[in-house]
Amino acid sequence: MRTVVDTILAEVFERCRDNRDGTLADYIPELAEVPPDTFSLCVATADGHVYEAGSSDVEFTIQSISKPLTYGLALADRGADAVAAKIDVEPSGEPFNEISLDPVTERPRNPMINAGAITAASLVAGEPADRFERIRRCYSAYAGRDLGIDHDVYASEARTGHRNRAIGHMLRSFGIITDDPEDAVDLYFRQCSITVTSRDLALMAATLANNGTNPLTGDCALAPEHVERVLSVMTSCGMYDAAGDWIARVGLPAKSGVGGGVMAVLPGQIGIAVHSPRLDAHGNSVRGVQACRELSKALELHFLHVGRAARSAIRSSYTVAQATSRQRRTDDERAALAAHGDRARVYELHGDLLFAGAESAVRSVEAQSETVDAVVVDLHRVDEVSDVARRMLANLRDNLEAQGRACAFVDPEGHLGAVASSVDPATRSGRVLVDLDSALEWAESVVLDRHCLVGRVPESVEPAAHPLFSALRTDQVASLVPRLAVVEYPGGTTVVRRGDPAIGIALILSGRVSTTVTGPNGTTHRITTFAAGMTFGELPTLTGSGYLADIRADTPLRLAVLTPELFAELGASAPDVKVALLERLTESAYKQLDTVIRGLGAKGPILAVP
Amino acid sequence: MRTVVDTILAEVFERCRDNRDGTLADYIPELAEVPPDTFSLCVATADGHVYEAGSSDVEFTIQSISKPLTYGLALADRGADAVAAKIDVEPSGEPFNEISLDPVTERPRNPMINAGAITAASLVAGEPADRFERIRRCYSAYAGRDLGIDHDVYASEARTGHRNRAIGHMLRSFGIITDDPEDAVDLYFRQCSITVTSRDLALMAATLANNGTNPLTGDCALAPEHVERVLSVMTSCGMYDAAGDWIARVGLPAKSGVGGGVMAVLPGQIGIAVHSPRLDAHGNSVRGVQACRELSKALELHFLHVGRAARSAIRSSYTVAQATSRQRRTDDERAALAAHGDRARVYELHGDLLFAGAESAVRSVEAQSETVDAVVVDLHRVDEVSDVARRMLANLRDNLEAQGRACAFVDPEGHLGAVASSVDPATRSGRVLVDLDSALEWAESVVLDRHCLVGRVPESVEPAAHPLFSALRTDQVASLVPRLAVVEYPGGTTVVRRGDPAIGIALILSGRVSTTVTGPNGTTHRITTFAAGMTFGELPTLTGSGYLADIRADTPLRLAVLTPELFAELGASAPDVKVALLERLTESAYKQLDTVIRGLGAKGPILAVP
Repeated sequence: MRTVVDTILAEVFERCRDNRDGTLADYIPELAEVPPDTFSLCVATADGHVYEAGSSDVEFTIQSISKPLTYGLALADRGADAVAAKIDVEPSGEPFNEISLDPVTERPRNPMINAGAITAASLVAGEPADRFERIRRCYSAYAGRDLGIDHDVYASEARTGHRNRAIGHMLRSFGIITDDPEDAVDLYFRQCSITVTSRDLALMAATLANNGTNPLTGDCALAPEHVERVLSVMTSCGMYDAAGDWIARVGLPAKSGVGGGVMAVLPGQIGIAVHSPRLDAHGNSVRGVQACRELSKALELHFLHVGRAARSAIRSSYTVAQATSRQRRTDDERAALAAHGDRARVYELHGDLLFAGAESAVRSVEAQSETVDAVVVDLHRVDEVSDVARRMLANLRDNLEAQGRACAFVDPEGHLGAVASSVDPATRSGRVLVDLDSALEWAESVVLDRHCLVGRVPESVEPAAHPLFSALRTDQVASLVPRLAVVEYPGGTTVVRRGDPAIGIALILSGRVSTTVTGPNGTTHRITTFAAGMTFGELPTLTGSGYLADIRADTPLRLAVLTPELFAELGASAPDVKVALLERLTESAYKQLDTVIRGLGAKGPILAVP
Repeated sequence: MRTVVDTILAEVFERCRDNRDGTLADYIPELAEVPPDTFSLCVATADGHVYEAGSSDVEFTIQSISKPLTYGLALADRGADAVAAKIDVEPSGEPFNEISLDPVTERPRNPMINAGAITAASLVAGEPADRFERIRRCYSAYAGRDLGIDHDVYASEARTGHRNRAIGHMLRSFGIITDDPEDAVDLYFRQCSITVTSRDLALMAATLANNGTNPLTGDCALAPEHVERVLSVMTSCGMYDAAGDWIARVGLPAKSGVGGGVMAVLPGQIGIAVHSPRLDAHGNSVRGVQACRELSKALELHFLHVGRAARSAIRSSYTVAQATSRQRRTDDERAALAAHGDRARVYELHGDLLFAGAESAVRSVEAQSETVDAVVVDLHRVDEVSDVARRMLANLRDNLEAQGRACAFVDPEGHLGAVASSVDPATRSGRVLVDLDSALEWAESVVLDRHCLVGRVPESVEPAAHPLFSALRTDQVASLVPRLAVVEYPGGTTVVRRGDPAIGIALILSGRVSTTVTGPNGTTHRITTFAAGMTFGELPTLTGSGYLADIRADTPLRLAVLTPELFAELGASAPDVKVALLERLTESAYKQLDTVIRGLGAKGPILAVP
């Protein structure tokens, strides 16, 4: 299936192909002799999918694109401060191979000019004999495959590279390099001679976009704390002295090399690579610059692109009058929740909780805090929580509690760093709950404790007092009750399994049961919880079908069971009793159905989350 | 309530306050005489909330922070190409007030040095006498209040600004300025003398962050198409010759002025302003630089910060076996949807649909396309769709249709630019539907047309053949049917209103009705749709309560009504009939309840979207 990305790549490729401006690098014969019109273009996503156009399997020498990679290795080996003491990060107005240091700091101006790159190579840890292998393995981790070296290019660079040797000795004379400068210069020649394809280069860029981890192999090429620095230096100094135009017209951290390669990175998103050996006056690939400009425009990749302004991280907000837990409630409880449920509010957050989104979300919650007794902040859809956002959420909780409001978090992934507490509706504020349903039940209990003083689910009920019989006369109850089977189950037992035949209409006398389904991954999910005074198993009893879900005793359980045989027989022996029971059951079913359907509200589908 | 942002601002403020390094600008007496230790720090969010620390209401002259604003006005007045023909965008290694042009292009190197800024002022449209007022109004639109000018500073600058006059005449001699250069230089002196507070400056930065629109007033200060260019130039050239260090350690487009102000922008997110008049050797506010570094670190604002890699724009994906429309279905239809509903899949997208997210989403949908007959792409939670994403969605549709799959979009906000078609379940592929429920119904119909050949909702049904009576004997039906009231309603009429007393159990003989609720904003939402062979109004009839929702005839409607009086009377006259009816009603209610509750699945709350 040809995708739009393929099409756009092909369009850009076609438009750039006719551009034969520029000239090959000619300071060594190996570069002057490459086929000048080789051209390829690759885009790799941060999850490792690669789109390619042109001859993306042609190998070429990485040259200066090695500079940010070795700089990253030096940062990892020596730490940011030690590296900063040796190499500045200011753009240089001078040619990349200038034999000079910053007159004030007496350091190379940045790691993208040769003086800075040779210094970075000198900072790679290890014995001189091992350092090149460390560099090669590092680059290979970026690319996700074992990279080789072009020995001819290396030999040629080593033979003719007097200017770089001059730079090495200058660095040694200023004390920037403290060992033999020939070793650092030789290492630099070797790293520049490592060969890559544009597919490799796109994956190297995608590895930077993916915070230093190659998305296909999962190997870490650069620790996340150094990625930002490497990308910053690529932004300010990566494209030689065309940085301003590059930022304005491409807007991506990038690095080019005289081998004709260009790589560009959109952090968190994609990597781009182009290979085309003809260079412009700055030393950048002519088609590489053109292709990056066109791709940035066509794909809207500029890193300063403002879509719309940041939106709140709040995905939805609702009260427990609008959303109910799976706990089946008594009529009085339902009425109390309908009347006072707006005193408990759930805020569902989503996306990455970075500063701006968290700030806006916390501000919204606090603005409404006067109107509620309980707040649930649901993080189950949140992908990442930054340190400042974590601090803001803790502060929100403290502020709410200082106002006498209860606050709980749904945080199954532990973003807040706290251990999730088990389901305990009696628990009050500040708890971290493992799922939204537990949090809803907790929030409902806060409301009910304040606003539902009678009609709460009783601890236990005698058979004759079970609400199912409320429409029956005393004598009808008296004759029916002895015919019920009273059964007890220890907590944790399975009462019935999905598919079992009906045991009858089960009247709960004490304890709690939950209907549960087991997902394809083996996890069990609660559908509804029933407590004393409620019934379950009506549908299998009425229809003769099997149970649609497992039913488990959450606690020690006592049931009075009206068996299918008894229920059928009542039609003949006591039709008035059967009518009264059916009316009660029907009413109960429709009330629940109404609650559920109305709760679905205006927009949401009836949705199973896989 | 003290927020974490207030706390962080206060912490940064305290740490920076002791820093008394740097010196006041002294080239005119007015700047040399300001209180040197004035200090304030403001953060404005892209939605206009301002956090402040220090004396944020002290006015100071905007100075060079005016440069990007006037550059933006020139872009708006003349277009990007005409401005690019006069001013380059490369960082200059030279002082900001150098009397020189780029030796190759013979243009000012960028709009942040004085030569470029004076050129930008010369490009502001209007008669010379009107131009300053246009500039002042433009800046006022950024700040959201009417800004004034410090006449003493202006007079002093005008009296002593020989270097800027020299630059003006140099620009005139090279043909960069074509009118009287004194006018442009005077305009530049005036714009630099406009006074702002750090609160103003933070809102100006927030306006840039908000794509050029002041978030409090809604006034557009700069058209969105120019914002990216202005921010780009601030990135590469905004902090004089400390751009590399600024990008590495702050990572925000920014601009400073010799009045001691600094403004910084995180696109889409926030604006920052600092005012502290002591300057470093680069001409940047000492505390301004320190405060921006600390804020960037504490709030994780660096624009190259990689959180986690881009995730797919797919928020959830489910089949019509897992999610059902509000269309009430026959048993056969329900069974067919349960068995074959996995042949129709809904992909709910969210967030901004930019390139990387759309690419990943489309790739996922196409990877699963072999397994489905119908695809719904739900955009109702999508905030913005970029051009390339729009193209990718259209291509996805074409590819699916070429494979013989049906495809529909839910796009109530018209992101795709197509007019949403009305609800028409018969419509096949490529349609744009206004809500998810219509799309679910459409997707169900695709599945049912292939997999449910019998038992579909009939066009019409005679009273005696209504499924409610399926458990009755023929003679029972024969005696009951004549006692039903047959009623007809034209399409579009309201059958009952919320709160009305029960008319009875309504058996639909032909046509469709929907239960609807009217939201607080007056919009009407469908809860459930019923068709021939179904019943409604059971709950009010059984309980004597009023209707909980309006019920409207979607089409011409024919009902047979079993009145409350008749239903009550059946208990005495024909208890076996009443039992059979109640069993059927209970069964139906529990089946629906079961479908709904199971559909809620593992995680979703029963959620009303406000």
